[in-house]
Amino acid sequence: MKPIGERVELSDLPLREDLRGRTPYGAPQLDVPVRLNTNENPYPPTPELVADVVAAVAEIAGELHRYPDRDALALRADLAAYLAAATGVPLTERNLWAANGSNEILQQVLQAFGGPGRTALGFEPSYSMHPIIAAGTRTEWAPTPRRDDFSLDTARAAEIVAERRPDVVFVTSPNNPTGQSVPPEELRELIAAAPGVVVVDEAYAEFSPRRSAAELIEEFPAKLIVSRTMSKAFAFAGGRLGYLAAAPAVVDALLLVRLPYHLSALTQAAARASLRHAAETLGSVAKLAAERDRVAESLAGLGFRVVESDSNFLLFGWFEDAHATWRSYLERGVLIRDVGIAGHLRVTIGTPEENDAFLAASKEVRR
Amino acid sequence: MKPIGERVELSDLPLREDLRGRTPYGAPQLDVPVRLNTNENPYPPTPELVADVVAAVAEIAGELHRYPDRDALALRADLAAYLAAATGVPLTERNLWAANGSNEILQQVLQAFGGPGRTALGFEPSYSMHPIIAAGTRTEWAPTPRRDDFSLDTARAAEIVAERRPDVVFVTSPNNPTGQSVPPEELRELIAAAPGVVVVDEAYAEFSPRRSAAELIEEFPAKLIVSRTMSKAFAFAGGRLGYLAAAPAVVDALLLVRLPYHLSALTQAAARASLRHAAETLGSVAKLAAERDRVAESLAGLGFRVVESDSNFLLFGWFEDAHATWRSYLERGVLIRDVGIAGHLRVTIGTPEENDAFLAASKEVRR
Repeated sequence: MKPIGERVELSDLPLREDLRGRTPYGAPQLDVPVRLNTNENPYPPTPELVADVVAAVAEIAGELHRYPDRDALALRADLAAYLAAATGVPLTERNLWAANGSNEILQQVLQAFGGPGRTALGFEPSYSMHPIIAAGTRTEWAPTPRRDDFSLDTARAAEIVAERRPDVVFVTSPNNPTGQSVPPEELRELIAAAPGVVVVDEAYAEFSPRRSAAELIEEFPAKLIVSRTMSKAFAFAGGRLGYLAAAPAVVDALLLVRLPYHLSALTQAAARASLRHAAETLGSVAKLAAERDRVAESLAGLGFRVVESDSNFLLFGWFEDAHATWRSYLERGVLIRDVGIAGHLRVTIGTPEENDAFLAASKEVRR
Repeated sequence: MKPIGERVELSDLPLREDLRGRTPYGAPQLDVPVRLNTNENPYPPTPELVADVVAAVAEIAGELHRYPDRDALALRADLAAYLAAATGVPLTERNLWAANGSNEILQQVLQAFGGPGRTALGFEPSYSMHPIIAAGTRTEWAPTPRRDDFSLDTARAAEIVAERRPDVVFVTSPNNPTGQSVPPEELRELIAAAPGVVVVDEAYAEFSPRRSAAELIEEFPAKLIVSRTMSKAFAFAGGRLGYLAAAPAVVDALLLVRLPYHLSALTQAAARASLRHAAETLGSVAKLAAERDRVAESLAGLGFRVVESDSNFLLFGWFEDAHATWRSYLERGVLIRDVGIAGHLRVTIGTPEENDAFLAASKEVRR
């Protein structure tokens, strides 16, 4: 059946000017045997976790006609307990805030601390959603290059921040799509130099042995926000749960911009169930780290240049035409990611079998 | 335990200027015997629906480590089938878009068609989130008064729209918190006069016998957006599912501003399960409409002024001090809503027992 109203096109609409000509964000969602393109945890939830999620939903489903807890207090307490144990920082539920994925967390942060007439600065290449969310909130985006090897020169970064005075600074650690992280002691100078807020995006922190920036919140309570997600190590990408740790006043600020009842009762219940199984889920992290090292070594053995990573993905090259190589992988049933960095592609670490398939394809693809 | 970073307060943060001094939106979430304050459907999901929601979640929970369908195609097809049947308009999944509550739908609409330098106009009193979401997206808000009896003079409204040329117009039908709706034939002139988009917010449409504005989409494909929610008649407030119907090009526009993977696999599955039980859930609508008429008549009999409503709530007065009266109800265990309209309060229609409790309290409260 044809949709109604099909005679008008996007260009006929009174769209805001800066959106004209853009295309939607998103990695292709293709049905391919080996999917190593979105940095998911390849290990499905255990049967115990699935049963617990289902039981948690069963418990709340009889009340779905009622609005959920607008402030998600129980979930925030559980997240605080997890993050306090993981980082050694004594966080409470008043230090935590949660939303539908860390994208919504970052959007709320930019709604509160960015916006028109304000600037957000990031060190690129980095998570490509940062500039997109900045655009969505009309925050000016100030991209600043990393070193040629993609590492972050924090001393130089502090100078740039002191000079440009952005309202929001993003530091991704470990950095996506390159893989390296920045330890807290190197972040201190950068945060001290920032006139506004600094968001340390720790989406991949569980994969890294480095300490969390959360230990600096007490030192910089008016500035530092540490964002996290359950989409990666927690194997909860389908559940959409992002969160942050910060001073309680930062959470108060986000209450002014969050849409009321943004987190469904389903999400709150399922995320809490998933957190109860943190130990078993995070058991896959060591396996994935070992696999990452094996894949990195094999790629290097095949003559690829591999960027050092303490995350669950690897950036590698060099390719004359990275997009053509991406397609070569796809033709071999392996979906990886063209992140738009000249000469490079990104591969998510999967199960040993998936990684073997990727490595087999790597021997064949054109450079 | 005390949270860390508590020594800073909201006023110490580099918050955007226009948020300073604001307080978060939200009706008090109080634990009171009779809660008639948020226009929820008082009837819990049936055991069959609960079982189906749980089964649907069980079916997808094993894949929670994977990102959800970013475009929610199956859910949009189900919503299209429901709305086509309910309105008689041949909508397809390409005419539908869904998000975490209609608040997120409206936020995306304002991100695409509003924003800094643009204006949104609404006829007040109306849904109080419209100006808040406008502020959140930095869209200038142009409030325009309704008639003294809260009805909408559509001919005059069309003149005002032609004169002020807002980029976005909101028409709430049935209007919250007053209760009346505007039939499509009266909207035609207003939409024709609008230079930008017109959002007809039909959150309460299932309670009204009037026809949906969706039948005008074919006539105004570049302008008309009809938003809906599963929070009210569908008894799915806890599941957070809002949606809209419009031309496919409008959906394409929203893809440019939506956060990727905004709708969790849980939400998509549970909403689809809930839609399969539409007939039984919406069976409560006739009961609620009959109760609404009974409550309206009883209130009038007690000497209150009651605004005509074809929704699941009533606006009534007159009170010297509406907030003091709201408190009088609360002291009697009945939570209703002070919507900030001088002399008036809003009560949601509950079960017959809840309504009796409300009417009993109404005999006692101070005017």
